Amino acid sequence: MHEHVRPLPSYLVNRFHGWQATAYAENKAWYRRLAEEGQRPRSMVISCCDSRVHVTSIFGADSGEFFIHRNIANLVPPYNPDGDHHGTSAAVEYAVSSLKVAHLIVLGHSQCGGVAGCHAMCTGHAPELEEKTSFVGAWLDLLRPGFERVKEQPEEKQVNALEHEAVVVSLENLITFPFVKAALDSDNMTLHGLWHDIGSGALEQYNPARGAFEQV
Amino acid sequence: MHEHVRPLPSYLVNRFHGWQATAYAENKAWYRRLAEEGQRPRSMVISCCDSRVHVTSIFGADSGEFFIHRNIANLVPPYNPDGDHHGTSAAVEYAVSSLKVAHLIVLGHSQCGGVAGCHAMCTGHAPELEEKTSFVGAWLDLLRPGFERVKEQPEEKQVNALEHEAVVVSLENLITFPFVKAALDSDNMTLHGLWHDIGSGALEQYNPARGAFEQV
Amino acid sequence: MHEHVRPLPSYLVNRFHGWQATAYAENKAWYRRLAEEGQRPRSMVISCCDSRVHVTSIFGADSGEFFIHRNIANLVPPYNPDGDHHGTSAAVEYAVSSLKVAHLIVLGHSQCGGVAGCHAMCTGHAPELEEKTSFVGAWLDLLRPGFERVKEQPEEKQVNALEHEAVVVSLENLITFPFVKAALDSDNMTLHGLWHDIGSGALEQYNPARGAFEQV
Amino acid sequence: MHEHVRPLPSYLVNRFHGWQATAYAENKAWYRRLAEEGQRPRSMVISCCDSRVHVTSIFGADSGEFFIHRNIANLVPPYNPDGDHHGTSAAVEYAVSSLKVAHLIVLGHSQCGGVAGCHAMCTGHAPELEEKTSFVGAWLDLLRPGFERVKEQPEEKQVNALEHEAVVVSLENLITFPFVKAALDSDNMTLHGLWHDIGSGALEQYNPARGAFEQV
Repeated sequence: MHEHVRPLPSYLVNRFHGWQATAYAENKAWYRRLAEEGQRPRSMVISCCDSRVHVTSIFGADSGEFFIHRNIANLVPPYNPDGDHHGTSAAVEYAVSSLKVAHLIVLGHSQCGGVAGCHAMCTGHAPELEEKTSFVGAWLDLLRPGFERVKEQPEEKQVNALEHEAVVVSLENLITFPFVKAALDSDNMTLHGLWHDIGSGALEQYNPARGAFEQV
Repeated sequence: MHEHVRPLPSYLVNRFHGWQATAYAENKAWYRRLAEEGQRPRSMVISCCDSRVHVTSIFGADSGEFFIHRNIANLVPPYNPDGDHHGTSAAVEYAVSSLKVAHLIVLGHSQCGGVAGCHAMCTGHAPELEEKTSFVGAWLDLLRPGFERVKEQPEEKQVNALEHEAVVVSLENLITFPFVKAALDSDNMTLHGLWHDIGSGALEQYNPARGAFEQV
Repeated sequence: MHEHVRPLPSYLVNRFHGWQATAYAENKAWYRRLAEEGQRPRSMVISCCDSRVHVTSIFGADSGEFFIHRNIANLVPPYNPDGDHHGTSAAVEYAVSSLKVAHLIVLGHSQCGGVAGCHAMCTGHAPELEEKTSFVGAWLDLLRPGFERVKEQPEEKQVNALEHEAVVVSLENLITFPFVKAALDSDNMTLHGLWHDIGSGALEQYNPARGAFEQV
Repeated sequence: MHEHVRPLPSYLVNRFHGWQATAYAENKAWYRRLAEEGQRPRSMVISCCDSRVHVTSIFGADSGEFFIHRNIANLVPPYNPDGDHHGTSAAVEYAVSSLKVAHLIVLGHSQCGGVAGCHAMCTGHAPELEEKTSFVGAWLDLLRPGFERVKEQPEEKQVNALEHEAVVVSLENLITFPFVKAALDSDNMTLHGLWHDIGSGALEQYNPARGAFEQV
């Protein structure tokens, strides 16, 4: 490992020192309290790793507000307590059972490379993702039930529809977790499905009564 | 699911509309290009879900700069291509093989609830995490090799040491991925280990030559 | 003072700019009229400083509707024109005599730290509040007559009862102000006592005929 | 008192029921946690009772964020622990010593009736405020030191200047409280002076280095 771990690029060092001298200095008291008293986030957000999705920015949120898990295509696997390492399930369990967040939000987005990959895989255009050694392919397999629901749509609409299904499938899977179900049933948490359009800046939310997304 | 999915709390709706009218409006041209041309992040950051850790803030990063995966305790499992759903491994594969990021950064932090939980579990104080149905416990199992390296230290120093080990273990595991190793060996990527102190605002980086963290 | 006054934290600056570009822009005409013609609030509300009590939210009130005084435990001192600085009495005088509000509302609430402090002080459990230099203790002294009325109740009910008494004592003291009495006697104003439960969202109002609070 | 305390006007009852069925229902889980775990506001705001000043709106703040004291003209008296009932001093003591807020913000505003009254009084145009029985006059006396600093300005500028002085005088008086001074000196709190223009929606902040207010 020794030869590969390097000092941080200086442009990041410089920016960090700038942050320390400004934003940190202005909020030192609050950061200290957050350190001493612990976090108490109101919401958990499950969002994509995509570098263009900034949930704290679009909601004007500062340190301490959102507990954020980010993975490829904002997917949640179904409940499966087999003892294996399930990073997403662990994050949800911690947020719901330990932190007792009041809102559980799944945030999808446009131009999602993961969703596009899933679509390519399900339509037979990405054999490399179907190889057993592909972590990305195995992960995107979680979204196959979503593909089943969009595959009859006109082809040019399928990827966008699948991006929205990535949110719906995750909401559905979340409810298979007993502790999520219990928190929802006891009115200790609400569930929210969002989809963000990177280019237009729009935000849509899932309306389960209509089974459709609507502009916020 | 119908009865549990709710409209977004109005304070978030209001703040979102504020963002649309300001930050989005000011940067519309860039967001459109990001949508049309796709993302091209320079770095991937693996960070904790903790609501007090804001990697974009401390590095003054805007949309498009960091591909960010966040999980409990910023852990990376060892390479294990068994066909199961590995969210973290998928995110690393996508960042390295598809996005070809230039820097792969693991960011740990102080007061980490996940690390504290792992320490409690390894010292026999958290039997609930050792139950087979605990996703958090199974996930934190990834950090046991780190506990083995700190367990001889004075007890009051162990948790802080384990927070640093969570970074080192992840760096070590990252190198077990063939595509990570290849990118590093061919000088197409560098690796970085950081630890952030929430209360003091400090940042430390791992110096492999000394096997220790140093102030940035 | 120079070294202590700092720029506003940037997350508040960003949110303010968002407000300017949305809520302000949409209501500019009304805000301008409010500026030019002055305020003409229908009601005055006396409420607690507690961050969980939002009288404008629970009553859907917008700019210009409520003249709001907030202090610890929503207390009003008895009439005492001794020439000293009485912030609460001044606010009441201004609302009644200058603004001629039609309704004067006292709003108490559950989990009130001030009321709990008063109870601790009156039962001998908060000597620090009895010290002469404690502003909080001296202020909560206004609620001692309320404690006298609840002290025979079962201990576990006393704090909740005292929260309600904080409203009743304030109503009683308000009537000792000649200008309040005159406005009430001439039917130019009505008086209202409310108590809000933060957790359940309930609202109770004081029914003087029964000497009790009733669900709204 | 009996004949004066009345049921809440039905338009407020209706709006309250609307709030219960919407905003409360959406955020029930969070309100419950706020009730059970207590408040942990990041900031205290000292603002005017004026019905046109909505600090939570302009900063997109929801329940739990701001501990708010409101009095006529957002004034803070100098430190004076004489055992009398000082509502403002008690609120500051509670916020700083018990809640340990990270930011202490004084928010002044345009068209302030209290400041205009102080100006009239100080220029001899409001003899009624100088009577010993006037609570408003006695309260506005706190702002006389501010008038001394603006009285040489052109008359048409004096009231606006005095509105800004109401903020500066309060900041100065806040520092006379030993517990405020201690929190500032130990970097456990920062101080902020703001002035809001109701008609134009602008916000200015006090820059002590220049001794002037600047647009935010």
